[in-house]
Amino acid sequence: MPRPMKLYNHALAPNPRRVRIFAAEKGMELSLEEVDILAGQCRTPEFLAKNSSGAVPVLELDDGSCLSESVAICRYLEGLHPEPNLLGRDLREQVEIERWNRRMELELFAAIGRTVQNTSSIFQGRFKQFPDYGKAQRVIVHQRLERMDRELDGHQFVASERFTIADITALVAIDIGGRLADIRIAPELAHLTRWHQAVSNRPSAKA
Amino acid sequence: MPRPMKLYNHALAPNPRRVRIFAAEKGMELSLEEVDILAGQCRTPEFLAKNSSGAVPVLELDDGSCLSESVAICRYLEGLHPEPNLLGRDLREQVEIERWNRRMELELFAAIGRTVQNTSSIFQGRFKQFPDYGKAQRVIVHQRLERMDRELDGHQFVASERFTIADITALVAIDIGGRLADIRIAPELAHLTRWHQAVSNRPSAKA
Repeated sequence: MPRPMKLYNHALAPNPRRVRIFAAEKGMELSLEEVDILAGQCRTPEFLAKNSSGAVPVLELDDGSCLSESVAICRYLEGLHPEPNLLGRDLREQVEIERWNRRMELELFAAIGRTVQNTSSIFQGRFKQFPDYGKAQRVIVHQRLERMDRELDGHQFVASERFTIADITALVAIDIGGRLADIRIAPELAHLTRWHQAVSNRPSAKA
Repeated sequence: MPRPMKLYNHALAPNPRRVRIFAAEKGMELSLEEVDILAGQCRTPEFLAKNSSGAVPVLELDDGSCLSESVAICRYLEGLHPEPNLLGRDLREQVEIERWNRRMELELFAAIGRTVQNTSSIFQGRFKQFPDYGKAQRVIVHQRLERMDRELDGHQFVASERFTIADITALVAIDIGGRLADIRIAPELAHLTRWHQAVSNRPSAKA
């Protein structure tokens, strides 16, 4: 039984959760080491040597080398544990899943991030907030949730007829928006509501 | 000689340029079809059927199916034409290149995009701008260029000792920032200046 790999983690931050869910879907155990990012623990020279961008998650391998960036770490885990497949089996499927994962990240996750950063009290005093900009981003988030609802009409999951990394990205984005910016899925968005319930009920969502 | 694949393009937009440079590095010819995005041509029902997010680039295959999202299209081109390799040969290299490509995209390209969108006259009247927010993003862009300069100390390219997709993302980001938001590499950033000259002098940069 190999020793579990160490993941530098923050329990409430969205990007480490992406990796935790990905690993849980594959039945992989990770040894979590909490980094107190709000107290600046990822700005220490020791941590910056692991990831010069000063962010979690970071995956530390047995040889001491470190991988960072959530999707890159997920690609590494997929390479080690190909099943269940979450990034696509053949080229066309890989491209389609990457397309949808990027849309969830760049259109949804990023807009939720801008809303949270500019409106949530958790970031007050940490950096300058632009509340009017945050409010405008919130409108964009809701437009994107409506589009996502239309796209899920007739589709069980975001990118494919099975659960993939694109579902993880969207779930984590929506949940952090709910927790820090009170972003809610309107009940009339029935397809999105059904999808969110289904992915939230998977055991991996608790990871 | 197979017919070149069709790329729905906009000559001045950054994301199609990423795909054009990627294809040029591989010696692949693409048949470019201009989409007048400023005139709303990517919001027509015909175009939305190709890409529901209403953005270029879109790669149309011979069977009529369409791929979108620049990095996903690049992955497809790499699958068809593996050499010269731009996304990594083995798993560890793929993960490292993806990490750096994401950093260039999420930390640099995205911050330049927010600066441009909120300060450039090209977007005036197209959507609501927040100039103060744009000015704050400009400060972040310059911090990231300084970090990139430090990271290029002793390294010829962004992700590896050879040219990869991460260099393309960074080049396209910096160039669009220069053109639309007067973002310039300060002359004291010698490593970044040397890198920018080297990648700009590659024939693919004209694609």
